[in-house]
Amino acid sequence: MPDLRDKGPGGLNLLTVAELSAQLEQKQTTSVAIVQACLDRIKSREPDIRAWAYLDPEAALAQARACDEQPRRSPLHGIPIGIKDIFDTFDMPTSYGSAIYKDFRPTMDTALVALMRRAGMVIIGKCRTTEFASPVPAGVRNPHDFNRSPGVSSSGSAAAVADFMIPLALGSQTGGSTILPAAFCGVVGYKSSLTGLDRGGVRHLRPTLDTMGLFARSVTDVITLRAELCGAVPPAPAADIRTLRIGVCRTANWDQAQPETVQALESAARDLAAAGAKIEDIEMPASFAGIHESFNAVSSVEGLRAMAIEARDHWDSLNYWIKNSLTAAKTISRTQFDKAQLHVVQCQHAMAGIFRNFDIIITPSTAGEAIADVVSISNSAFNRTWTLLHVPCVTIPTYQGPNGMPVGLQIVGPIGSDDRTLALAQRIAATLM
Amino acid sequence: MPDLRDKGPGGLNLLTVAELSAQLEQKQTTSVAIVQACLDRIKSREPDIRAWAYLDPEAALAQARACDEQPRRSPLHGIPIGIKDIFDTFDMPTSYGSAIYKDFRPTMDTALVALMRRAGMVIIGKCRTTEFASPVPAGVRNPHDFNRSPGVSSSGSAAAVADFMIPLALGSQTGGSTILPAAFCGVVGYKSSLTGLDRGGVRHLRPTLDTMGLFARSVTDVITLRAELCGAVPPAPAADIRTLRIGVCRTANWDQAQPETVQALESAARDLAAAGAKIEDIEMPASFAGIHESFNAVSSVEGLRAMAIEARDHWDSLNYWIKNSLTAAKTISRTQFDKAQLHVVQCQHAMAGIFRNFDIIITPSTAGEAIADVVSISNSAFNRTWTLLHVPCVTIPTYQGPNGMPVGLQIVGPIGSDDRTLALAQRIAATLM
Repeated sequence: MPDLRDKGPGGLNLLTVAELSAQLEQKQTTSVAIVQACLDRIKSREPDIRAWAYLDPEAALAQARACDEQPRRSPLHGIPIGIKDIFDTFDMPTSYGSAIYKDFRPTMDTALVALMRRAGMVIIGKCRTTEFASPVPAGVRNPHDFNRSPGVSSSGSAAAVADFMIPLALGSQTGGSTILPAAFCGVVGYKSSLTGLDRGGVRHLRPTLDTMGLFARSVTDVITLRAELCGAVPPAPAADIRTLRIGVCRTANWDQAQPETVQALESAARDLAAAGAKIEDIEMPASFAGIHESFNAVSSVEGLRAMAIEARDHWDSLNYWIKNSLTAAKTISRTQFDKAQLHVVQCQHAMAGIFRNFDIIITPSTAGEAIADVVSISNSAFNRTWTLLHVPCVTIPTYQGPNGMPVGLQIVGPIGSDDRTLALAQRIAATLM
Repeated sequence: MPDLRDKGPGGLNLLTVAELSAQLEQKQTTSVAIVQACLDRIKSREPDIRAWAYLDPEAALAQARACDEQPRRSPLHGIPIGIKDIFDTFDMPTSYGSAIYKDFRPTMDTALVALMRRAGMVIIGKCRTTEFASPVPAGVRNPHDFNRSPGVSSSGSAAAVADFMIPLALGSQTGGSTILPAAFCGVVGYKSSLTGLDRGGVRHLRPTLDTMGLFARSVTDVITLRAELCGAVPPAPAADIRTLRIGVCRTANWDQAQPETVQALESAARDLAAAGAKIEDIEMPASFAGIHESFNAVSSVEGLRAMAIEARDHWDSLNYWIKNSLTAAKTISRTQFDKAQLHVVQCQHAMAGIFRNFDIIITPSTAGEAIADVVSISNSAFNRTWTLLHVPCVTIPTYQGPNGMPVGLQIVGPIGSDDRTLALAQRIAATLM
């Protein structure tokens, strides 16, 4: 895999948050210098990658100057971040990837964006999303190969972090929208527990599916950002790898795993066992049968409620996938929806039972490396179940596919254990990379 | 304090969630019977208390019938709950307490409401709120004395739970809007950490202040509800009271504490010491000077962003407090806002330092018992600082004032420690009551 560092102008934009934060604290650099390095990189690479839905360089630099003039508020003070364009910002347009909302100017920040500003971060711009975060690609290209997909739907967020345009980005996941693009682009992606990161002020919310996601180039940087957004102290590093009980979960979709994904999971299991972890295979319980159907029922009914206004007033502008999903939702009865929700609750209970015997699970991040076109819908079969189960997931870019594209390893923990899951992902990344 | 149980029809509506859940599980009762008992109580008492903004008895009973026909999804399956009328519901109007939104029908549930439905709960109706959750009372009466305030702004939620109309209610807190009405009405109130309960889909959000709140008649019931809303298992009961280090915080507003509040805090400290807890006084650090001004700056600037559309298009319909706050916001510069946010961050750091030496803090819930009118703004000086600090707070109805009205004791823990704070509140309640 050629090093993307060398593909465009580089300097401060190549560093991690931990490195930037140390330099800022010691006054060895400024937020303006960091943001300028990011903007230079974007200027050079954006025509090919198309990661940005909105960018106002002067406004970003003005934010950076204000940060440089103020006392530091957090370890993230002065650090730039890109925001998926489904999240409202009071000072930039938000289009939700839709022609309906072209140039729409919300009056409020969503909660996470406001919490980032409060930590002194620079909201550098809006990263391109698919239409209403649906699976139909939006024209963003994978920085490693412009003819390949960056994954959806947080495409711009993943591509911009992978290409060293920004050190951090905010995304979301309803099916596979954080883990999949992070894995395709070769960065760290973290999807929180359903309520593990604040969803306040998010529009078009599917309340039991839409989850917030963070992108960075190291697990450590994700941990720093999450701690700031939750107002808590970062968790202690995880225990010695030799004390860990790790479950290997091939899932019911193992037949869809391509050779590079099979190899990634098997070598991770082997290397972690060699490092002293207790490794054991996990079978999903029989009660999980039909879980994709339950996902579809919940997703389409909640989607119909979330998109009611747009479906009524702007049907023709919606893409084919959204129309199909909304049409399908109308055929699902209240009883079927209730049954699907009950099934999900039962699966969540079963999953909690599995976690009584394991500290953490490793499982594929994707079916394989990034698909070789930029218009098809990617396979999110290795993500939808975890989203539906509300568990925290982290993908780390540990492997490489036959075409030199990144392949991820997914680390999954129990609901609400986001801090510990991230700490264990950090430990596993350190062991494998 | 006369027992409100005897003030109207009583039966299943008098029970706690723990009792109802056990009866439902053993098929000794039905959700329809519980909801009917609640509706009977409401019918009898609502003309005096005016706790409800929207109630459709037939629709509530239909939800209950559906619950009775379905397998149990959670310990809260079939249990009714009232929702503060600032939270969207896809099947009921939401007015935000404002004439602007009279009969407004949102298309989506806010996240917490959807999570309640998913747990099998009955969304019985919308509890009256003040206009946009501002401090100007909305005509709800205190069930213990109709000439006294129930507290604001989650007035209907607190009054309905206190009056045995419903076992649980959802509210919110930006200043003192959960703890204050809970204390005035003599029920348990829990204000989460800023991000401790999901704020997804909440409109008019002040991102660093608006916090979700729960009302119940026992701490145990709050714990059960919170666990379900977070998808986590309820926490283990707290350790023996004799192992606890409890800080007594009179706050900088101690001069505003009326005799009943002084007495409540001093007797709690004495009784907890007698039970073996290690009790020590806490002074707020000098850096907290000016914290009320910082609160006002953050609250008004965030409020201006949240209410931008209403301020532009419906200025004349807004109440005097909201107009004053929005007008004040326009005089606050970006630099002043940044400075206030920095001050808050510094106070939060200082507070985290204090919690290194204490398991928990006890402090007044209110200045005194419920004020003797239903139009004045109540004093939330004992609440605003904790809201601004983002810490979890619980009020328990432990005492009584000179007019026979309830007086609460507030229990405060560190950010993110919601489960442990509730477990300690449960332990303290068991010790004191």
